[in-house]
Amino acid sequence: MVKPEPIELAVLSQRYQEYHPHLDLPEAGCQILLADPDLAATALNRLPKVQWIQSTWAGVRPLLNHNRRNYQLTGIKDVFGVQIREYVLTYLLYFTRQVPEYLSKQKRQCWQPESPKTLAGQTLGILGAGNIGTDVARAASGLGMRVVGLTRSGQCKDVFEQCYAPAQRLEMTAQCDHLVSLLPQTPDTTNLINAELLRQLPRHGVIINAGRGNVIHQQALIDSLTNKQIRGAVLDVFEQEPLPDCHPFWHTPNLIVTQHTAGVSFPKDIAKLFLNNLRHWREGQPLLHRIDFAKGY
Amino acid sequence: MVKPEPIELAVLSQRYQEYHPHLDLPEAGCQILLADPDLAATALNRLPKVQWIQSTWAGVRPLLNHNRRNYQLTGIKDVFGVQIREYVLTYLLYFTRQVPEYLSKQKRQCWQPESPKTLAGQTLGILGAGNIGTDVARAASGLGMRVVGLTRSGQCKDVFEQCYAPAQRLEMTAQCDHLVSLLPQTPDTTNLINAELLRQLPRHGVIINAGRGNVIHQQALIDSLTNKQIRGAVLDVFEQEPLPDCHPFWHTPNLIVTQHTAGVSFPKDIAKLFLNNLRHWREGQPLLHRIDFAKGY
Repeated sequence: MVKPEPIELAVLSQRYQEYHPHLDLPEAGCQILLADPDLAATALNRLPKVQWIQSTWAGVRPLLNHNRRNYQLTGIKDVFGVQIREYVLTYLLYFTRQVPEYLSKQKRQCWQPESPKTLAGQTLGILGAGNIGTDVARAASGLGMRVVGLTRSGQCKDVFEQCYAPAQRLEMTAQCDHLVSLLPQTPDTTNLINAELLRQLPRHGVIINAGRGNVIHQQALIDSLTNKQIRGAVLDVFEQEPLPDCHPFWHTPNLIVTQHTAGVSFPKDIAKLFLNNLRHWREGQPLLHRIDFAKGY
Repeated sequence: MVKPEPIELAVLSQRYQEYHPHLDLPEAGCQILLADPDLAATALNRLPKVQWIQSTWAGVRPLLNHNRRNYQLTGIKDVFGVQIREYVLTYLLYFTRQVPEYLSKQKRQCWQPESPKTLAGQTLGILGAGNIGTDVARAASGLGMRVVGLTRSGQCKDVFEQCYAPAQRLEMTAQCDHLVSLLPQTPDTTNLINAELLRQLPRHGVIINAGRGNVIHQQALIDSLTNKQIRGAVLDVFEQEPLPDCHPFWHTPNLIVTQHTAGVSFPKDIAKLFLNNLRHWREGQPLLHRIDFAKGY
């Protein structure tokens, strides 16, 4: 049996370094890097031999913004679906089942029942119908929702009743009761959810953003909520994180701030995915979840 | 064609009378009554000819408590499943995804992310695995929960991984992360959820009661929540409704009071079910959803 050639491999991750604070930075000979994209981007110029970077995050924008591209970049997939589908259902149900109203009635000891609304029979629009979007779509469809999706190609897939291309986003939104964005940060997605799109939603409509913060036009969302044009918004991601103290989102009515926790990559999941990809690498097979630098995902 | 014999039929329902305030009470010759069980129980002695009462509610206790039983009593089934499965998921997710914690952090403008927990992988125990319980079980199982049930017979059914008889309720609860009660009010169900049973649940455990109020030992639940032995309780039903002003449930920590709105019977659903049963009656077929006076459901 031929002994496999040694590969120089390094880990560069905030969470990993919390456990190993004296870990050295990757040496110049490093060929494979398992890394947080922001730390990797900072180190990249000192690592001429890197051939593959496995990101520990779903969002790889810091590396896409770097001008070096002569290596393979792989992302994280299939580990967020369960968490994000539950996150989305949590807040769709929170507003639809009038949880804030019942909490307020309880405080006032006011017994005043209202007829429940159901998600069943409503339409959910998912912006970004990739792996995670498909998981969310299946969960929503399992509860009797109709699901439509927005994809780059507009081609229909899986449980989506219909998919639309970005140019048809107003037509799509006009049929939706609620919208979920799982879009990545690319130049095309910036401010995609703007005042014109928000006007297509009904007054009971809820917007959930578990993708990237650039997708929502901030002032348009604040206006829409303040004027009660939509029922609520739940934001997990922001253009700047942590959300700055002075940001109006903290206090916008019916806007819920979570803290980039809709889908968290647990080390055990990342490790499993990385080891699987490392096997592909050693065996000369194509790497899984490779990022296309041009498309940005 | 033989002309069908006329049937004397009356409606006796609070909601119906809101629309028809001058509606006369049923006449003595009334044979079929579509009625709220409390109003029917009050009128029953004046209606010697009644052969069939179709209840407009799921709970028929006022008629079971009446000593007259020489008529067929039919209940409401299959119209609450969608509403109640969403109600149960709303509050399981509310606590599991730490909604109250994030709302409190937002008020304090405190950015302090926590790792999300998921319902997937957890075990849900459903007390009362009838039609509604099965709908709840399917929804929970669709999200990756393991589901066990409590039934009178202990026989397993449908998506339940295992079912237990009432005598095994402690053994069953010890495996559960969360409990949902959909049990009807019968002598056997009173105080079934008592201190001993509550002690089987973990600290993150949530109790949801969308069945009948008699099932929970009130002081035991208050103690369990006050001592943080369980994470939360969500009660839709109470021994006395509306919940009296002086009742401690209004202010028990981590106890959420909804207002008998987990599953509401909409007139259109009741009308459809009644007309279908009326067809059975006319054709001499057995009535659907007949209540067994001895069992109480």
